[in-house]
Amino acid sequence: MQAQQIADFLSGRLIGNPARDITGAASLLKAGPADLSFIEDAKYLDRAGQCRAGAVLAGQFAAGGVPGLESTLIIVNTPRLAFARAVAFIADSGRTPSGVHSTAVVDASAQLGAQVSIDAHSVIGRHVRIGARTRVGPGCVLFDDVEIGEDCELIARVTVYSKTRVGHRVVVHAGAVLGSDGFGFAKDEQTGAYYKFPQIGRLEIGDDVEIGANCTIDRAALDATVIAAGAKLDNMVHVGHNVQIGRNVVISAQAGIAGSSVIEQNVVVAGQVGIADHVRIEEGAILGAQCGVPSHKVIRGNGAIFWGTPARPIREYLKELAALARLAKKR
Amino acid sequence: MQAQQIADFLSGRLIGNPARDITGAASLLKAGPADLSFIEDAKYLDRAGQCRAGAVLAGQFAAGGVPGLESTLIIVNTPRLAFARAVAFIADSGRTPSGVHSTAVVDASAQLGAQVSIDAHSVIGRHVRIGARTRVGPGCVLFDDVEIGEDCELIARVTVYSKTRVGHRVVVHAGAVLGSDGFGFAKDEQTGAYYKFPQIGRLEIGDDVEIGANCTIDRAALDATVIAAGAKLDNMVHVGHNVQIGRNVVISAQAGIAGSSVIEQNVVVAGQVGIADHVRIEEGAILGAQCGVPSHKVIRGNGAIFWGTPARPIREYLKELAALARLAKKR
Amino acid sequence: MQAQQIADFLSGRLIGNPARDITGAASLLKAGPADLSFIEDAKYLDRAGQCRAGAVLAGQFAAGGVPGLESTLIIVNTPRLAFARAVAFIADSGRTPSGVHSTAVVDASAQLGAQVSIDAHSVIGRHVRIGARTRVGPGCVLFDDVEIGEDCELIARVTVYSKTRVGHRVVVHAGAVLGSDGFGFAKDEQTGAYYKFPQIGRLEIGDDVEIGANCTIDRAALDATVIAAGAKLDNMVHVGHNVQIGRNVVISAQAGIAGSSVIEQNVVVAGQVGIADHVRIEEGAILGAQCGVPSHKVIRGNGAIFWGTPARPIREYLKELAALARLAKKR
Repeated sequence: MQAQQIADFLSGRLIGNPARDITGAASLLKAGPADLSFIEDAKYLDRAGQCRAGAVLAGQFAAGGVPGLESTLIIVNTPRLAFARAVAFIADSGRTPSGVHSTAVVDASAQLGAQVSIDAHSVIGRHVRIGARTRVGPGCVLFDDVEIGEDCELIARVTVYSKTRVGHRVVVHAGAVLGSDGFGFAKDEQTGAYYKFPQIGRLEIGDDVEIGANCTIDRAALDATVIAAGAKLDNMVHVGHNVQIGRNVVISAQAGIAGSSVIEQNVVVAGQVGIADHVRIEEGAILGAQCGVPSHKVIRGNGAIFWGTPARPIREYLKELAALARLAKKR
Repeated sequence: MQAQQIADFLSGRLIGNPARDITGAASLLKAGPADLSFIEDAKYLDRAGQCRAGAVLAGQFAAGGVPGLESTLIIVNTPRLAFARAVAFIADSGRTPSGVHSTAVVDASAQLGAQVSIDAHSVIGRHVRIGARTRVGPGCVLFDDVEIGEDCELIARVTVYSKTRVGHRVVVHAGAVLGSDGFGFAKDEQTGAYYKFPQIGRLEIGDDVEIGANCTIDRAALDATVIAAGAKLDNMVHVGHNVQIGRNVVISAQAGIAGSSVIEQNVVVAGQVGIADHVRIEEGAILGAQCGVPSHKVIRGNGAIFWGTPARPIREYLKELAALARLAKKR
Repeated sequence: MQAQQIADFLSGRLIGNPARDITGAASLLKAGPADLSFIEDAKYLDRAGQCRAGAVLAGQFAAGGVPGLESTLIIVNTPRLAFARAVAFIADSGRTPSGVHSTAVVDASAQLGAQVSIDAHSVIGRHVRIGARTRVGPGCVLFDDVEIGEDCELIARVTVYSKTRVGHRVVVHAGAVLGSDGFGFAKDEQTGAYYKFPQIGRLEIGDDVEIGANCTIDRAALDATVIAAGAKLDNMVHVGHNVQIGRNVVISAQAGIAGSSVIEQNVVVAGQVGIADHVRIEEGAILGAQCGVPSHKVIRGNGAIFWGTPARPIREYLKELAALARLAKKR
């Protein structure tokens, strides 16, 4: 790909050689002549001047050029975001479909879009529908009636339970389990034994979602668990049955969300947070690492930060910590 | 299946058409004419009267009939429990064995019971024994000398280490790992290096256990890790080596139990709870979400609820939280 | 293997029959005539005298012999460590390579060392290099350009992302994911949408590392995530991008380490600990179960123990707990 194509894609202004051939990306220190790199701040101008990258993205602070720079320069408004978008753009252009591998087991009733790839040892059930250009990596299992949109990537060893629906441009990392049975049982009070309550709903995942390695996301008991467009889940996140996750929600590693809770859009959930059942986290709230939200609780939104178990406004929590430390020192 | 068969199975009393054909189940709102549904309380009688379900389970409160209901009515004592049992009953009747898939790799010494299914790309080791009607889903690995009972389901991509024994009617969800090596090392004090302490015991799982997606359950170092009959584990639960889990214990997602701890029967462990090594949780105790039980500690049973780290009786913990909040406000 | 060979390997002193045939290992109570066992303390001498083991390891306390013992006795300095080393020695001698299974999919450009085993349904990408005697168990996926050293074991269903490098004698348990994408996004402030920040670095794992079942270890964004030699990770440990883990670090189950943190050598991390991003845990520190270390914090080393969230010296934390309990009781 030529540097000018990248500049055009980013609506950036190119300074230098527009015909540079760019095939990869790297940090400023490691970039070679076919790599794209970026600087976020004027203080890195010196370093950029000495780099070997083929092209460098920079902000308006570099609009006058970079002394010593032999690379092509592309001026954009937000270099970090532009770099992210450009690398995805380059990667997409280099991707070629590999077709259906001879060891894949694909049911005759499955419908595969144009240029779909199904890698080795994957298993595709009855009436599965997979959109154009989607890649199902090695060792995946898609049970009956699953629908996957276009331009998705299931990296490897992903399991998708029956009836799960996945949008477009969704990335699912290795070992993730989508649409597993929720944890619901009816107790026989006479014997103490638990009978499985039917988990026969489904899971719906919107466009542009990314799901980390070894996540587990349960189907609904009777209706649908929903993960809206743009949500990003880190590794080993657990999402219980009937949970509703809003647009652009970010959830860090090892957080868990119990049944029927609602996470409104733009919420940020840090690592190892625990959210009990029937909770509502309002739009834009931020839950600090390891905090715990008890059952049926509502957490205020609007950028408020919460910490501790039970989760409380961070200022309150820090005051309590300070008061406790003083109290302990008194004796 | 006819409605009368379900009523007979549940020892319920049928009102209406006994010959209704029932093939599925759904919530009252979504149920169609071939679905079973249920209501738990008289306040839903109106809604039931308008539903399109083929058959509805209800309690004695509906013994006089439901105005407007065209569905068949089945009167039982505990509608929720009855619904759970009936759905399993319907599902069992619809299940047909699929045999050994041509891509499965089954050692010649393995013994498969009647109507066992081994799905695509599964691997069955030497001297494995699998009971009648058990289904091993796609991509599972059963190492040598594993024993699985009758009517089990390993959904997909389950790994079972050698010598693990699993009872009857056990369900294991995708990505679970049964019988992995425990975490035990002997330190060479001279070099600081750790040598693996032998993890050569086994894992035993009783009847009617359910194990969630991506759980990890370690074999014992030398003897046996035991999960007794009727225990239910949610997703991503970790069970260390030599742990003993009693009958009908319920463990929610992301809880972890370290080596040699004993969880007596009927204990309830909420999400993200951490139980250290050599702990005893007495019969019927309830551990609140995210609480932590330190090494060698004994937790009283009989329905007592514990919370916090270190776990303490919930009344005590709530009093401490309140006292701390007051203290912090004073300044 | 003869008892004398084990004694020689351990530099121990043999008392009794040097020609005993030893093929396994077990606890004193369960050991049979072909098993090795051990006692750590003189108080078990009686029990040892009655055991049926083929050979027993014991400390200098047994140098005068064990009354009644018919087993061969091997006197060593540290019986527990010697037992660990001996069992590994016996297991290694019994291992035979099984070659490349007919269902494995191995790219023609992959380089396999002598006596490498690739089990059923594994997938080996382009330019992968695997060292001598390494075993890749069933259902593993190794993407392009992965390098694995000698004498490693990937037990089953392990996924290794491209460019990951693994040292010698590394053991990886079932379901682990090595080198997955880190969790990094650039936010478009205008739309609220997140764009994936490139995760194009790699993961490097040193010699003698053990990685538990269903762990997830992310590659670096641009450079390398590093796990140094001798580190031991329990099940379901999460390691974020760019993390550096030192030699002989021990990390218990369900702990998580966020991006760019540094864990110096000989640190011990207990179960469910959460370490935020850009943290430094100094050499030899011990983090108690479930504790939490906030972003950018430095934790003092030298055997100091920390507990609580935010993590503080354990003495301080215990004093605070005591003070709080007293305060709550006052009312």
